[in-house]
Amino acid sequence: MKENIKNAFSEYIKLTETELLILSESLITKHYKKGEYFIKEKDFCDYVGFVDKGLFNFFYLIDGVEHIRGFFFMNDFISNYPCFLLGNKSKFYIRALENSSITLIHKKDLFLLYKQLPKLQELSRSIVEKLYIEISEKYESFFIKTAEERYLELINSEPDILKIVPQYMIASYLGITPEGLSRIKKRKS
Amino acid sequence: MKENIKNAFSEYIKLTETELLILSESLITKHYKKGEYFIKEKDFCDYVGFVDKGLFNFFYLIDGVEHIRGFFFMNDFISNYPCFLLGNKSKFYIRALENSSITLIHKKDLFLLYKQLPKLQELSRSIVEKLYIEISEKYESFFIKTAEERYLELINSEPDILKIVPQYMIASYLGITPEGLSRIKKRKS
Repeated sequence: MKENIKNAFSEYIKLTETELLILSESLITKHYKKGEYFIKEKDFCDYVGFVDKGLFNFFYLIDGVEHIRGFFFMNDFISNYPCFLLGNKSKFYIRALENSSITLIHKKDLFLLYKQLPKLQELSRSIVEKLYIEISEKYESFFIKTAEERYLELINSEPDILKIVPQYMIASYLGITPEGLSRIKKRKS
Repeated sequence: MKENIKNAFSEYIKLTETELLILSESLITKHYKKGEYFIKEKDFCDYVGFVDKGLFNFFYLIDGVEHIRGFFFMNDFISNYPCFLLGNKSKFYIRALENSSITLIHKKDLFLLYKQLPKLQELSRSIVEKLYIEISEKYESFFIKTAEERYLELINSEPDILKIVPQYMIASYLGITPEGLSRIKKRKS
């Protein structure tokens, strides 16, 4: 198993070498060229993954316009997790913004592993809690923060984002125009 | 332990009578009169709970205006869960809309129970997954659905809500004016 995945897991629980080996047998790695999709609208979402390399965004396509709602960076967990759990089709897209790779596990294999390694329940609980915190904060910030505050939050948590993500995508993510974003950047520079 | 709590848990995992007894020793029940708060802004959130009876709403207070973002009904889990996990202070309020009661567990006791009854990891994972799905759908619906669609969603999932929650609160929840809500109701009646 790759070191970055081991490290990500070890934040939450201690797994023995044997346990890591059992887990790693269920993992597969897939490569995505820039512009390729991890999930498209109306796809089923049978996998959860871990971004080994690269960067993805997720967006809703509404009347032909991409509304970007978030990014997945290296060492992030990546999925449409509600659809993964419910067996629904995705309503959004996840697309590679550069050449990227993801280590994946299939739903069926994850649920088999829960039986074989009950400890993984704790790992999953911790990961879902983290995802829940992230989405709650994002949801909250749309109600109680201005675009400027959310911009500062974004560059604090991802200082390199302005170098790698086009400005129009960041503006879409913040729910403002590219011109609005330019004005904020000028005020803050 | 009360039957409704047992039933809620049994949706996720099977607990023996002994396990239920151990769990119930950590539970306390609190009563809230109409208008009383379960959580206020700037409170720490050391408890998660289960609504035994009654109804709560949660809202942000911004410039003196209550922005209602959701409701907790009987048999819902209730908390500011991100703050519970992170040890942060709440940014929102949770208030009883009628005389209500909640069965609670303290954070300290829950984490002790995880050691004593590792099965609870699975229960917690399942509950957090459910909460994650709910908030994701809510977050998604704000982007891809109209107020009218969200109104229909709300009355489909909670058919009695119009009888028990004042119209202005439902309008606030949908992000529209009470007059806008009246127009939607007229069109749909």
